[in-house]
Amino acid sequence: MKQITGGVCAAKGFLSGGIRCGIKPNATKKDLALIYSETHCSAAAVFTTNKVKAACVVLSQENIADAKLRAIIANSGNANACTGQTGMKAARRMAQLTADSLLIDPQDVAVASTGVIGVQLPIDTIEKNIDSLKQSLRNDELGHNAALEAIMTTDTKKKDIAVEIEIDGKAVHIGAMTKGSGMIHPNMATMLAFITTDANILPSALNTALRQAVKKSFNRLTVDGDTSTNDMAIIMANGEAGNTSITGEGENYKIFYDALEYVCIDLTKKMAQDGEGATKLVTVKVTGAENEDTAEVLAKSVASSSLVKAACFGADANWGRVLCAMGYGAHNAGANFAQDNVNVSFASKAGVVQVCKGGASYDFSEEKAKLVLSENEIDIIIELGDGDGQAVAWGCDLTYDYVKINGDYRS
Amino acid sequence: MKQITGGVCAAKGFLSGGIRCGIKPNATKKDLALIYSETHCSAAAVFTTNKVKAACVVLSQENIADAKLRAIIANSGNANACTGQTGMKAARRMAQLTADSLLIDPQDVAVASTGVIGVQLPIDTIEKNIDSLKQSLRNDELGHNAALEAIMTTDTKKKDIAVEIEIDGKAVHIGAMTKGSGMIHPNMATMLAFITTDANILPSALNTALRQAVKKSFNRLTVDGDTSTNDMAIIMANGEAGNTSITGEGENYKIFYDALEYVCIDLTKKMAQDGEGATKLVTVKVTGAENEDTAEVLAKSVASSSLVKAACFGADANWGRVLCAMGYGAHNAGANFAQDNVNVSFASKAGVVQVCKGGASYDFSEEKAKLVLSENEIDIIIELGDGDGQAVAWGCDLTYDYVKINGDYRS
Repeated sequence: MKQITGGVCAAKGFLSGGIRCGIKPNATKKDLALIYSETHCSAAAVFTTNKVKAACVVLSQENIADAKLRAIIANSGNANACTGQTGMKAARRMAQLTADSLLIDPQDVAVASTGVIGVQLPIDTIEKNIDSLKQSLRNDELGHNAALEAIMTTDTKKKDIAVEIEIDGKAVHIGAMTKGSGMIHPNMATMLAFITTDANILPSALNTALRQAVKKSFNRLTVDGDTSTNDMAIIMANGEAGNTSITGEGENYKIFYDALEYVCIDLTKKMAQDGEGATKLVTVKVTGAENEDTAEVLAKSVASSSLVKAACFGADANWGRVLCAMGYGAHNAGANFAQDNVNVSFASKAGVVQVCKGGASYDFSEEKAKLVLSENEIDIIIELGDGDGQAVAWGCDLTYDYVKINGDYRS
Repeated sequence: MKQITGGVCAAKGFLSGGIRCGIKPNATKKDLALIYSETHCSAAAVFTTNKVKAACVVLSQENIADAKLRAIIANSGNANACTGQTGMKAARRMAQLTADSLLIDPQDVAVASTGVIGVQLPIDTIEKNIDSLKQSLRNDELGHNAALEAIMTTDTKKKDIAVEIEIDGKAVHIGAMTKGSGMIHPNMATMLAFITTDANILPSALNTALRQAVKKSFNRLTVDGDTSTNDMAIIMANGEAGNTSITGEGENYKIFYDALEYVCIDLTKKMAQDGEGATKLVTVKVTGAENEDTAEVLAKSVASSSLVKAACFGADANWGRVLCAMGYGAHNAGANFAQDNVNVSFASKAGVVQVCKGGASYDFSEEKAKLVLSENEIDIIIELGDGDGQAVAWGCDLTYDYVKINGDYRS
């Protein structure tokens, strides 16, 4: 596997574009994106578990029910959530406009929106600009970049990746972009993720691969504990690479799956690193748990703790908060671990410092710990003695800027 | 019912005191407290649900198993959590020292600790000072204040109350103190609460009353989503008021229960108001839910949301975050509500402004909303159309100072 350029356009047969149509107040920012496959695609998606779902989520769930898509249209600056029947009509209109413009079936269009909740989507503005959106489509990195810019909200960095793998002697590509910075918490697609691939793969295998990869990546990410109304991760596979169709478990599936998981984990880390106000990427690694589910519960609970996050910001080796978060996380999930077996270390490129052994304090150098925790990528390593379950969760520190960004988001 | 002075010493037959023994680094701060009943007491308690329990929690759970107590000893500056067998021995020694000093049974002593996790308790320091702690006991407000000061950590305000009610023509008193500012989240006794009463009441009735009052108060409080390892709420009733024994449901039970609930809710609000870094008390009121449990889930989820809390800090009427928090809260708890029936208003002494009607935006004055949300006590009022379940939850805003306080707590 090698990393390549091109983003979602790295996969053959995909075009992408983005424009400013006027939804975002800032007159210099793009706010409407389009990704399009020249040919038919298998598709799979995972959506937010929030009971309050944006209109676009409801519509996209309908449209992907047949496991086929040709295009994704996405706007930023407005979530089209809590907008009632008017919002639902706007989402349908958005799909119809896209379909009419591209001469495809409206049921082959996924719609995504991100931004402020509770404001009606200015669908007329989108209608006026649908042609120029279509004209912005390109099959290269510029097209990818334009689309990516157009889905960003409080994101400060572009989060994308593309990789090439070989299946059956054919070059197969996976390209992806995500947006997501706040309102991010495990339980699916805690953000927007659009993934393209030219792999030839059956919808059922694609669906299995996406769900598994999301479980290991996006669902183990937390920024602030708030699961959004609008989250979705979509993958489209158009088969243009020409490999023998991947139909299910097997060597070729594994090559594809591993690359997809790599892509999703890469994007997960990039989102954690760009969490609202974040100055540090915090990676929580749990090994030795009873099973993977327990490891996941514990890793997520530690990554989610406001107190752990604030301690990371302050480079304070307050490991007791790590055990505390494990304890209530386990209680809430009905999971277990033997406290007397817990070892905890902090690690970064400045070194490793063990701070807890057998569930109790371990004599460590505060000076060394401060150095380790002052780096901008910190690992919290938790070793249990209960089994061979392991999991990794990603998060970030809690900073003054998180409060600043979210104290007055709408203006 | 009338409010009176005296705190835990307002109840007849209770003495209280507090000293500095040297556990806290700050040489001017008290750190060891004692509450003592001259006669035998019925007692009940509720403890943290965290799987990682401090040694003092384990010991106090043992000692209250027979529903009797005579004394509570509490230290601040050290949580005696994650301290292994050494910590357990220290907690037992703390109970024994107290018992020896007061000439009572060590099983009649509850032990509480609060402070940094993972550092061994300096039990020798406590031993050296146990006599001066006993000598500090007084039966008046000064004794109460000394004990209260000695259990405070990041608290900036004293949180106490005392009330007088009449049962059988006898004056009955309930006095209470709490500490709690951070690491506070629904699910019991998310802090220390010590309650005394001279009511004559059977242990079983006392236990029922405490559990019910805690469910309606402390368990509906959230500051930061972190459920501590050390939380406990203890009530001791010595019967000195001379009323006919309250044995269970009935008029006298109701008078007692209502007063106890009043006391617990009063302390809950005081803790929310003094949440770490808080500038605002945020009260979330849900009515019209399917049932009380659903109302509670929704109220707590909104009060816990970092995004809602940051919006309160910024006086930003971002009501979409309220619906979002209801949506994921309901999902996580397996609860339900009809989104199309949701009305949301913000209220404070500056007025009331409705911001959401039927689950969608309601035309409102941003100027008015800003005024309403700029007050230091804000109500978020959520009306559903699903039934007659209602609940209130209490929280606070998320501020720069929360991050500051917790970025370097240990030093």
